[in-house]
Amino acid sequence: MKTQLIQFLPILKWGQDYNRATLTNDLVAALIVTIMLIPQSLAYALLAGLPPQAGLYASIVPIMLYAVFGTSRSLAVGPVAVVSLMTAAALSNIVEQGTMGYAVAALSLAALSGIILLLMGLFRLGFIANFLSHPVIAGFITASGIIIATSQLKNVFGVNAHGHNLLDLVISLSSHLSEINWITVVIGASATAFLFWIRKGLSPFLQKLGMPKHVIGILIKIGPVAIIVVTTLVVWGFDLAQKGVKIVGEVPQSLPPLTLPSFSPDLLGQLLLPAFLISIIGFVESISVAQTLAAKKRQQINPDQELIGLGAANIGASLTGGFPVTGGFSRSVVNFDAGAETPAAGAFTAIGLAFAALFLTPLIYFLPKATLAATIIVAVLSLVDFSILKRSWKYAKADFSAVSVTIILTLILGVEAGVLAGVILSILLHLYKSSKPHIAEVGKVPGTHHYRNILRHDVVTDPTIVSLRVDESLYFANARYLEDKIHNRVAKDKCVRHVILQCSAINDVDLSALESLEMINERLREMGVKLHLSEIKGPVMDRLKRGHFLSHLSGEIFLSQHDAVETLKPKPV
Amino acid sequence: MKTQLIQFLPILKWGQDYNRATLTNDLVAALIVTIMLIPQSLAYALLAGLPPQAGLYASIVPIMLYAVFGTSRSLAVGPVAVVSLMTAAALSNIVEQGTMGYAVAALSLAALSGIILLLMGLFRLGFIANFLSHPVIAGFITASGIIIATSQLKNVFGVNAHGHNLLDLVISLSSHLSEINWITVVIGASATAFLFWIRKGLSPFLQKLGMPKHVIGILIKIGPVAIIVVTTLVVWGFDLAQKGVKIVGEVPQSLPPLTLPSFSPDLLGQLLLPAFLISIIGFVESISVAQTLAAKKRQQINPDQELIGLGAANIGASLTGGFPVTGGFSRSVVNFDAGAETPAAGAFTAIGLAFAALFLTPLIYFLPKATLAATIIVAVLSLVDFSILKRSWKYAKADFSAVSVTIILTLILGVEAGVLAGVILSILLHLYKSSKPHIAEVGKVPGTHHYRNILRHDVVTDPTIVSLRVDESLYFANARYLEDKIHNRVAKDKCVRHVILQCSAINDVDLSALESLEMINERLREMGVKLHLSEIKGPVMDRLKRGHFLSHLSGEIFLSQHDAVETLKPKPV
Repeated sequence: MKTQLIQFLPILKWGQDYNRATLTNDLVAALIVTIMLIPQSLAYALLAGLPPQAGLYASIVPIMLYAVFGTSRSLAVGPVAVVSLMTAAALSNIVEQGTMGYAVAALSLAALSGIILLLMGLFRLGFIANFLSHPVIAGFITASGIIIATSQLKNVFGVNAHGHNLLDLVISLSSHLSEINWITVVIGASATAFLFWIRKGLSPFLQKLGMPKHVIGILIKIGPVAIIVVTTLVVWGFDLAQKGVKIVGEVPQSLPPLTLPSFSPDLLGQLLLPAFLISIIGFVESISVAQTLAAKKRQQINPDQELIGLGAANIGASLTGGFPVTGGFSRSVVNFDAGAETPAAGAFTAIGLAFAALFLTPLIYFLPKATLAATIIVAVLSLVDFSILKRSWKYAKADFSAVSVTIILTLILGVEAGVLAGVILSILLHLYKSSKPHIAEVGKVPGTHHYRNILRHDVVTDPTIVSLRVDESLYFANARYLEDKIHNRVAKDKCVRHVILQCSAINDVDLSALESLEMINERLREMGVKLHLSEIKGPVMDRLKRGHFLSHLSGEIFLSQHDAVETLKPKPV
Repeated sequence: MKTQLIQFLPILKWGQDYNRATLTNDLVAALIVTIMLIPQSLAYALLAGLPPQAGLYASIVPIMLYAVFGTSRSLAVGPVAVVSLMTAAALSNIVEQGTMGYAVAALSLAALSGIILLLMGLFRLGFIANFLSHPVIAGFITASGIIIATSQLKNVFGVNAHGHNLLDLVISLSSHLSEINWITVVIGASATAFLFWIRKGLSPFLQKLGMPKHVIGILIKIGPVAIIVVTTLVVWGFDLAQKGVKIVGEVPQSLPPLTLPSFSPDLLGQLLLPAFLISIIGFVESISVAQTLAAKKRQQINPDQELIGLGAANIGASLTGGFPVTGGFSRSVVNFDAGAETPAAGAFTAIGLAFAALFLTPLIYFLPKATLAATIIVAVLSLVDFSILKRSWKYAKADFSAVSVTIILTLILGVEAGVLAGVILSILLHLYKSSKPHIAEVGKVPGTHHYRNILRHDVVTDPTIVSLRVDESLYFANARYLEDKIHNRVAKDKCVRHVILQCSAINDVDLSALESLEMINERLREMGVKLHLSEIKGPVMDRLKRGHFLSHLSGEIFLSQHDAVETLKPKPV
């Protein structure tokens, strides 16, 4: 009973060993993460098309729920760039941005996504995420980064623009170029430049000043707050809001409100596919971060329990004025590096953010949106990585096609179409490859008992025996290919009396393949040729015994290819 | 140049050796097939919802075109039961049966199907058909047989009924039961009984009379003509058409007319998916018959050329008043058994049917539709075979699910939804299976160099070494599964210093799996554990060398698992 409960409530496990040292470490980590998260949360809410406070709300209760249900000790849950973009793309198709309906639809999206994650966790369906191949994820993240950065240009230029794919965005931006607010451009461009400098130039600069490394690390992480403070003061001091610089404006001083997502069937129907994609993409991002961090401390991550943790976090977001959340890469790494030891660090971060939501929001009244846009641009451009194109080109053309199709379609058609096309293409390419397996005709390496490809090695064969090694499990997509190969090999060569299938690389034989083997056996019999099998694996043999194939087999089963050839080759008279 | 032409025109090959003996054999076969085909062609036109002559037309030019382009020497092309049902299902959604538009849409469907087959042949896409697994085909054929037989009951009862799935048909039939024409029922039931008796009882009966076997064989094949003649005479003699027995009525005396399919984009859009499914199903039926018959004479079938032959046949059908056709099982077997030696037999059959279309159609004016329905019912009930359910249940649950879902959905939703659901389910089940591959921890069988599953055998292991054998190629769907498995195995066991992956069953490693291997390598390194590989196959090694993985590998590559363990195990001090 108790182990049962621990399984579903990991908090019971780490809670037992909690002590003063752990507490101190967790508190320090929480402070650093909180400072980093305030601008990030506001910015991602903006990206998702929501009022800035939604970003804070989405970081409070979800973090706490993940702390209770999640298995990672370092993962920090909240709004992340790609999921926020997907949220905006999903909602903009349905309701107009800025309306009350939009915020409610965001709650519904989070609720639906939470339910999907929870169900996947309870039914152990986490493996579905495996169908997002690395090339598809890499292509998708790169293309999303480009779209997100482009979408934020409107805030840097101080113009209106719409669209959730590159094409629409570029067209929309260029048609509004005449409305550019140059003061906004100056603020946005300097904020962007400064943030880039914090990433690249601050560390060497401070090192020259002789500052210790860990202090530099902390300064880099909380540095972005400086530009927030400076630009806010500038806009307030010079009254730039009157000159057309868009500002965050009034943000209610409040703890996360209790909210109820809409469950109108119409809305849910439209949100189902986006919610599913958001869940899968969010889960993949979260689990890879969690596993990378866990490995560093030899901790275990349970993917199914992670689904439950993320599901709870999203449902929490939907009930407290948030939007879809997941475990973010940058915030989790910061949390880990800052020394967080348990999920309690997350809970303390949540308290910090709640404090910010209650007391600090008046301070950001004059924060220009261009600064938040700069925060996003700098964050997402680190996601853009075209090197995957070169690597996959060099490694395998199938993987290259998956990457490039995903990038191109995501840019042109948007995030949902892009990721779906990538997944479908990966699956089709995989099926295509395994539908035409490598089938080698093998012969004996002289002086050994080994059999090797006759095209690659100098081997000895007997004209009455054809030995074939199939380098793939046999299943419906390649069963007929094998029929054709064997038929064509034997039909043209009247000397052949025996065909031996060396089964050492066959891990499975499904019913279609079994029927093909029966067909091959029958057709060879018609031609006066016997079919033999060698080196069948244990589990495959177990399975073959359940059908009638073995009793119909015209030839024999041999333990090794060598035995088979020795037994079958014509004896010298 | 000449070999090129022979490749695309197989007629040039067999035409060279044509002589008087071959001619005689072909003529005899053609005569028997012609007699069998007349009622069958009329019946399948009726099933497709078309006027009876369309069945004759669809058997004339297509046969001739296949004789020129096809590679099978025995295949007989024309209307077949399942394709006719799919034709009716596709067209009834779009135009009303019995209208001119319906016949034109049938031409368009044949044209579109012909073009699809031709393109698949030219671009060597025949492998697409491999994704129809044996369980899906078996389930689909069985369910189609049931639907077809049920759909013909309306003609046996003499009532109106509609529907292209079992549910609709049964509902429609029962709502019309009050309109039953009892004379029609008597004719239909006796025709059905007689046709069954020909199949089951005629042969023993004639054997008792001492008739030679080959004559019996011919009588069984042309026997159905007797019931056509008798019921036609009865209806004519007793003037039963006046008493509500539905008859074939006036059929134009004509050679196949020249017709032009409609290519309106609207129509083509609606017909595209059905045409694709008809092409694939037709191709699968045709190629399996062709290969089975070819094997008996050690002849070769070229699947891509078969696609071209069937494509030409369907385009021919669309230009001469027909509807979609393919190589039929029963007619091809009859053709083969009757001694057809070359495709010329098909051409002679076409001439026989053209003669029938020109001169014999007035004779079938009084042929009752109930007799044609009986012909169809008896033919398709031989397709119904539930034994596949038992066999697949015994062999593998995944195959059983594919069969049963295909049968159930075809019966409930109709042919298109049924076959699509079956294909998608087969693919998903296959992906699911390979996404959780069999991973065995192996140990040394004492006294040998062999390594076997520690759960199945008494083996020796070293506590510092974990040896794992993955029985599946590594690709995106199972890459993360392997990450989890290794992580969980090692994280809980602090003694481990080395992980050896025995790669003997790994036939491919895609980019996702490569990145997972890199991740595994990194994470193990964080834990102070080295990753080693053993028994990598040549092509996999070639591929791995194209990435950076091997240079980052913390451990070594070993030729054999034994070498690896011997090298890595702690040396006795």
